[in-house]
Amino acid sequence: MNPKKYEKVFRDPVHDYIYIQDPLILDLIDTPEFQRLRRIKQLGTSSYVFHGAEHSRFNHSLGVYEITRRFVNYFEKYYPSQTEGDGLWQNDKRLVTLCAALLHDIGHGPFSHTFEKIFQTDHEALTIQIILDPKTSVHQILRKVCADFPQQVANVIDKTYPNQQVVQLISSQIDADRMDYLLRDAYYTGVSYGKFDLARITRVIRPYKNQIVFDYSGMHAIEDYILSRYQMHMQIYFHATSRGMEAVLQKVFARARALFEQEPQLSDSICASFKPFRDCTWSLKDYLNLDDYVLGAFFSQWKDSEDAVLADLATRFVNRHPFTSIIVQENTQTHLTVALQQELMALGFNPENYLLTLSSFDIPYDFYQPGKSTSTNKPIQLLTKSDHLVELSQASALVKALRGQISGDQRLFFPREVIEHIQKVPEKQRTDSQETLLDAWLRDPNQVIYHQQEHLF
Amino acid sequence: MNPKKYEKVFRDPVHDYIYIQDPLILDLIDTPEFQRLRRIKQLGTSSYVFHGAEHSRFNHSLGVYEITRRFVNYFEKYYPSQTEGDGLWQNDKRLVTLCAALLHDIGHGPFSHTFEKIFQTDHEALTIQIILDPKTSVHQILRKVCADFPQQVANVIDKTYPNQQVVQLISSQIDADRMDYLLRDAYYTGVSYGKFDLARITRVIRPYKNQIVFDYSGMHAIEDYILSRYQMHMQIYFHATSRGMEAVLQKVFARARALFEQEPQLSDSICASFKPFRDCTWSLKDYLNLDDYVLGAFFSQWKDSEDAVLADLATRFVNRHPFTSIIVQENTQTHLTVALQQELMALGFNPENYLLTLSSFDIPYDFYQPGKSTSTNKPIQLLTKSDHLVELSQASALVKALRGQISGDQRLFFPREVIEHIQKVPEKQRTDSQETLLDAWLRDPNQVIYHQQEHLF
Amino acid sequence: MNPKKYEKVFRDPVHDYIYIQDPLILDLIDTPEFQRLRRIKQLGTSSYVFHGAEHSRFNHSLGVYEITRRFVNYFEKYYPSQTEGDGLWQNDKRLVTLCAALLHDIGHGPFSHTFEKIFQTDHEALTIQIILDPKTSVHQILRKVCADFPQQVANVIDKTYPNQQVVQLISSQIDADRMDYLLRDAYYTGVSYGKFDLARITRVIRPYKNQIVFDYSGMHAIEDYILSRYQMHMQIYFHATSRGMEAVLQKVFARARALFEQEPQLSDSICASFKPFRDCTWSLKDYLNLDDYVLGAFFSQWKDSEDAVLADLATRFVNRHPFTSIIVQENTQTHLTVALQQELMALGFNPENYLLTLSSFDIPYDFYQPGKSTSTNKPIQLLTKSDHLVELSQASALVKALRGQISGDQRLFFPREVIEHIQKVPEKQRTDSQETLLDAWLRDPNQVIYHQQEHLF
Amino acid sequence: MNPKKYEKVFRDPVHDYIYIQDPLILDLIDTPEFQRLRRIKQLGTSSYVFHGAEHSRFNHSLGVYEITRRFVNYFEKYYPSQTEGDGLWQNDKRLVTLCAALLHDIGHGPFSHTFEKIFQTDHEALTIQIILDPKTSVHQILRKVCADFPQQVANVIDKTYPNQQVVQLISSQIDADRMDYLLRDAYYTGVSYGKFDLARITRVIRPYKNQIVFDYSGMHAIEDYILSRYQMHMQIYFHATSRGMEAVLQKVFARARALFEQEPQLSDSICASFKPFRDCTWSLKDYLNLDDYVLGAFFSQWKDSEDAVLADLATRFVNRHPFTSIIVQENTQTHLTVALQQELMALGFNPENYLLTLSSFDIPYDFYQPGKSTSTNKPIQLLTKSDHLVELSQASALVKALRGQISGDQRLFFPREVIEHIQKVPEKQRTDSQETLLDAWLRDPNQVIYHQQEHLF
Repeated sequence: MNPKKYEKVFRDPVHDYIYIQDPLILDLIDTPEFQRLRRIKQLGTSSYVFHGAEHSRFNHSLGVYEITRRFVNYFEKYYPSQTEGDGLWQNDKRLVTLCAALLHDIGHGPFSHTFEKIFQTDHEALTIQIILDPKTSVHQILRKVCADFPQQVANVIDKTYPNQQVVQLISSQIDADRMDYLLRDAYYTGVSYGKFDLARITRVIRPYKNQIVFDYSGMHAIEDYILSRYQMHMQIYFHATSRGMEAVLQKVFARARALFEQEPQLSDSICASFKPFRDCTWSLKDYLNLDDYVLGAFFSQWKDSEDAVLADLATRFVNRHPFTSIIVQENTQTHLTVALQQELMALGFNPENYLLTLSSFDIPYDFYQPGKSTSTNKPIQLLTKSDHLVELSQASALVKALRGQISGDQRLFFPREVIEHIQKVPEKQRTDSQETLLDAWLRDPNQVIYHQQEHLF
Repeated sequence: MNPKKYEKVFRDPVHDYIYIQDPLILDLIDTPEFQRLRRIKQLGTSSYVFHGAEHSRFNHSLGVYEITRRFVNYFEKYYPSQTEGDGLWQNDKRLVTLCAALLHDIGHGPFSHTFEKIFQTDHEALTIQIILDPKTSVHQILRKVCADFPQQVANVIDKTYPNQQVVQLISSQIDADRMDYLLRDAYYTGVSYGKFDLARITRVIRPYKNQIVFDYSGMHAIEDYILSRYQMHMQIYFHATSRGMEAVLQKVFARARALFEQEPQLSDSICASFKPFRDCTWSLKDYLNLDDYVLGAFFSQWKDSEDAVLADLATRFVNRHPFTSIIVQENTQTHLTVALQQELMALGFNPENYLLTLSSFDIPYDFYQPGKSTSTNKPIQLLTKSDHLVELSQASALVKALRGQISGDQRLFFPREVIEHIQKVPEKQRTDSQETLLDAWLRDPNQVIYHQQEHLF
Repeated sequence: MNPKKYEKVFRDPVHDYIYIQDPLILDLIDTPEFQRLRRIKQLGTSSYVFHGAEHSRFNHSLGVYEITRRFVNYFEKYYPSQTEGDGLWQNDKRLVTLCAALLHDIGHGPFSHTFEKIFQTDHEALTIQIILDPKTSVHQILRKVCADFPQQVANVIDKTYPNQQVVQLISSQIDADRMDYLLRDAYYTGVSYGKFDLARITRVIRPYKNQIVFDYSGMHAIEDYILSRYQMHMQIYFHATSRGMEAVLQKVFARARALFEQEPQLSDSICASFKPFRDCTWSLKDYLNLDDYVLGAFFSQWKDSEDAVLADLATRFVNRHPFTSIIVQENTQTHLTVALQQELMALGFNPENYLLTLSSFDIPYDFYQPGKSTSTNKPIQLLTKSDHLVELSQASALVKALRGQISGDQRLFFPREVIEHIQKVPEKQRTDSQETLLDAWLRDPNQVIYHQQEHLF
Repeated sequence: MNPKKYEKVFRDPVHDYIYIQDPLILDLIDTPEFQRLRRIKQLGTSSYVFHGAEHSRFNHSLGVYEITRRFVNYFEKYYPSQTEGDGLWQNDKRLVTLCAALLHDIGHGPFSHTFEKIFQTDHEALTIQIILDPKTSVHQILRKVCADFPQQVANVIDKTYPNQQVVQLISSQIDADRMDYLLRDAYYTGVSYGKFDLARITRVIRPYKNQIVFDYSGMHAIEDYILSRYQMHMQIYFHATSRGMEAVLQKVFARARALFEQEPQLSDSICASFKPFRDCTWSLKDYLNLDDYVLGAFFSQWKDSEDAVLADLATRFVNRHPFTSIIVQENTQTHLTVALQQELMALGFNPENYLLTLSSFDIPYDFYQPGKSTSTNKPIQLLTKSDHLVELSQASALVKALRGQISGDQRLFFPREVIEHIQKVPEKQRTDSQETLLDAWLRDPNQVIYHQQEHLF
């Protein structure tokens, strides 16, 4: 009497519902490897500034899947390929596309960005490895489709898949990944800047001659998406205080690693699970055992470490005491670094453990132009009613203004005690280099711009 | 037992609540002149494209008042002037500011923009007149404060008021008027482009040395406001189809006026209330009797007019048959106009009644710079922690890209029948000028979106 | 190269987009009869209390269509009938369902509720008439489908259509009409009470044995819808101040009608278009010429009428001076009425023109039970996984509490001058009936409850 | 030139901004004890069903503070006490109120609800302890105000503080705590049910004769809050699947504790930090070292435990394999329990480790009535304009329907394998008790939704 409809839903605050219409997808979600993403924060240290943003990569991965599903359903309905080579959507690519969307971040580990710098892991390679390793549940489920299905999914993610429409849906300058994280990060941080009109984009996106393009009529929605991305970078992702926490974290990892190398027994006793990473002998299983919780437990222990430096750095991280920072330019970097080294040493801080440079740069939109741009990106193309392709920045003055522009900055991070100390020195007794530092710190407009939450710097 | 608190509220979908904390404001709202704004749509013909946007100027005027009230309350709390000349907020300006905010649009009439072109009224002058005329309820209520209070309010609106902080809150490149209409029009049309962070702006706006400035830390919120404004113009206010209805309306008014002049008795019989406008002898009372409803009743009658042209035009307006359009540039205007005139005449349409040019241009942000810009606007200024003023486009790459740029287009409007006719002519039989017209119509990506012009100055 | 997809969209603030997927629907929207709905407010006098709610029946009708389209698309996908009598969705009912949804309110006139009381029109009968009359554009477009298609659409609306699933989608205790107006009126008034989870209901609604039922798993969403409906009635639709404006309006109409009957020439001179309504000889064309704008123009004229009563009443309406009110019970009605008559006459108001009773009652949820309930409604049914139907109030304690309960009140409306006068009489000099009235007015908790916008009573 | 304004803000997705206007509050937020709340999820296992709800108690505590701040600021402005005993707001209570609001949850540990059952901790007592212990940073900062300030804050939280207005703001049937978690949990789960009109409540809440009451005009907002609370319990907090994860967790803890008791050396080797909890010798410092991260790391280790039961249970928890459940009533509990024990043993599961009962009951609204209700709650009171107090359920039919009603259910939880096994047994070979179990499982509409019990008292 009641025809069977297969459809499961997850309540999602960003997309209202995530619809699961293929049993395979639910099976993938239920794997230990995918469930592990619940234990890895999407935004790393950003929640130390935007306290609302405590969401996980599990959360985001479902969102990327859902946006992709909407696009694919739309293509199946309106642009199904009729004859080979017509450049339209091949419906038999549905499943590989959805799996790639769901799994594209599965190789991420805790605080990937920082962890990778110190322990030489690579989340992109690990994503591929998890998909291809016959021992993972993810692999075993994918293989049920057919023997080389895991490889197909992996190829979509590493962009070597022949059908470039599938690839571009998952990774390009306007893909489901970026669309979800902008909307989601905006929702959870509580800012309005990341919002754009996804419903409109869903109506104007289309497969066309082995690429993804957009109806010209959707130009303003695309423009708004580019602006949102720019604004989210400037205001959220590059926030100097989150990066101040990232700086502390990097020093924590570096110190731990150094200690393990110098005193291997230390590593064994306090955290056996780190041993393989110290020795670079870790297996996939070791890696999959790492998550924010496991690292969090380490930090908890490390703040009571016998090593005073590790204890101090871990305490700063656990209790949220970010490093402060000053912007450096090419011509100021050397003398500011030297000045900071002097101050740090005077205060008993070893610069090796307490000073570092972090750069955050992004190009909101760019594409490869021989001799002009070093970008390898493909341009975003608009399709007119008379079937001509127009590159986005030709249609939008705003995008033109942003094209190829590098946004962001490079900063030196260090304990705020340095500034506090200098401020206590009577003005006349300050050294020139103290004056220079204080001046750089005070004049930094970006300190102000970045710090919506003003108390935080 | 219960201390008296005077506070009335209106539920408002945009600002949640409008708070009335001064009895004078409620008295002004209750005047016939202010209630009349309920009968005048905020967006004129835009609701023919964005059906959600049927809100009135009453609605918007309350919103402008509310934003101003929030700013003023904030100033009173955090920036009260202590000594003369300290450049901070003078609390005794509260009431004149709120009244000006509330009443700044009270002189608007039905479809002001179009009506004024034909009947030589001027809503800004009428606003002043309503405030100053001793016979209006508005004036009588204002006068209760003191004899010259109406004049003070008028001066704020015509920008001659000495305290420029008060003036800038109500009219400048970033004033309560614009802030409300962007948020409100976005809410009612249902687009997201008009949204920006008003709560943030409320925290960073400040009085400073006889002007209104913004904390540097609010730069991105201001930038977002400028972008919102730009996007709302491009997508909502300049929409070619709303302007196609505006074009019809302008022809309706022009025809009615011409008829009245030729056959005065006609005017008398069908709409006595138009007589004074025909003769340019209208009084303020006549003007205040005009609203969308009264005009709507005229249109209803006119569609059954004995004059075939008036009947046809009014029918187009009432039943929503907008003119279509093509973009013209300086070098194409003449021959496109001639071509259209020929086609129209061939189809029995008198170009005088069925062809017109409408331009919609806006400069998102500009300011007076001797020898550089013809703008008379004041720049938007950001105040750093070290008390320096930085002009907005110096801090924001995006605003810099928009500064002084003219956005919009100029179009020729005419009945869609012209295009339909040409499309029916077999391709080989089309004249050159038919081809040119069809080509211009078809190639126009701007049928949907609007183009950019490089700065002309 | 580009496959043709037929899909037009309207931007809608409530449903994001209205999707038109059948050319017939767009043709119907473009008829003069449907465009006329732009000129008729959805909520009548409610915008005098909730100023945001100025939306039209055009706006709402599109929304009802859109909700219905979503339901129908869902049925087509998941519950298509396979064999006759399987009780599932018959896809050939799509078009008749959508047309009925779009047109269900097309017979509404300006301030229908009040107008009908005085001029004996009937918007439901007029809806049918507009659909069936061969002279209307609506009819001519419907007839293109097939000769009896207009009749089919009419039958859905008058509930005689054989397929009751179609009927129940458009009119039942949980239909697309109610769902849209709750969401829409909540959006425009700016209250949160009308919101419920439409996306969830769209997933649990289903055709089942010639009726519409809901998956048991959606019980809480249905419960929430019932609560929303209850709260919107209590807080918005029954608001005493809107009804105070309605009361004025009813007296305006009654006075105008009386005058026309007594002095026919008066009617002719001031508003020819009323003549047929006075004489009850109006045609459909006359009716279709009526809208808020035409009536608004009358009110404008009437406030300058030679008849002092009409002028006074029209002025109250135009300038928003609602009648105030007191609640009456069966046992208090007579003496309160008498008391008010006395006071009114003493102040020079003829009670015939200045006193009336209005009742607003609603039953949030009820259904026919022999010997128990007088309701003729069908119950809302939930379908369990084991294919049993459970009536809603059996599953929800909240709905059980509301079932069959009558909510609302009956009130006497009159000019607030009566109360103001009594308040000025020194307490000792007040008559008993004055005391009774003042007491009833002051003790009325509903005066307080209803008046969110407190200044308004 | 620029007057100093002290105001820091945190961007918050629920309240837009959290405003810090007292330096003391910022100092408290910066303590290790408060920062620790970032590492404790607000909703425990709910995020396994509503994946969006990964927010922490840090997040919620800021929200409770913010709502309280708004109430207090409103009281200070509109209801300041003028003379002793006037029952209005005493402004010198501001700080103690805000501190109590911020700190009311500081004693919570990871998965408190479940953890406390097994390890006999008590988060309410620990909250007091953290505030009073001279070694905590929280205490040291509070003590700066005055010597007994920590004790004052503690008294507000344990409700012994003399000023009951302060107590009721923080804990009562309508307090800042509940208001924040309803709004916040609704935001993060993505459901609409938890929303109510906080802005309205902020306007109608008031101090009155040593209690907190509400203007009668806000009745519907209060009613809506009660409904929201009821709906959130039914749909989110009592969700059978979250409780299925809770059941697993409880068994994990119980098994771990049992093992530690039997084999103390086990405990030492795998998780030294549990030792004091095993021995019930833990100190506050031990407790403060516990958080979701530390426990998460244990679970990670335990899934590789030598003890097969612990390993299995931990794996279920980490990989999200919730227990399934059936509802039990008083009269079915015994035989269903016996039947499940048999099935479990047949499948090799020891019921001690794999079967348990969990009850979730709530009374949406109730209050103490001698001889009628066992509730010790105070009623919610509405204040009429004529200064009479009306108890909420006297004014609202909906609240009356819910008053004293117990909502929720009692369930037996066990591994899903039991049901899967029975389903595989051919129908004719099933034992009676297998049939009974399967039947109970299948017929349970409450798998999805929850039932109502009539008032038991």
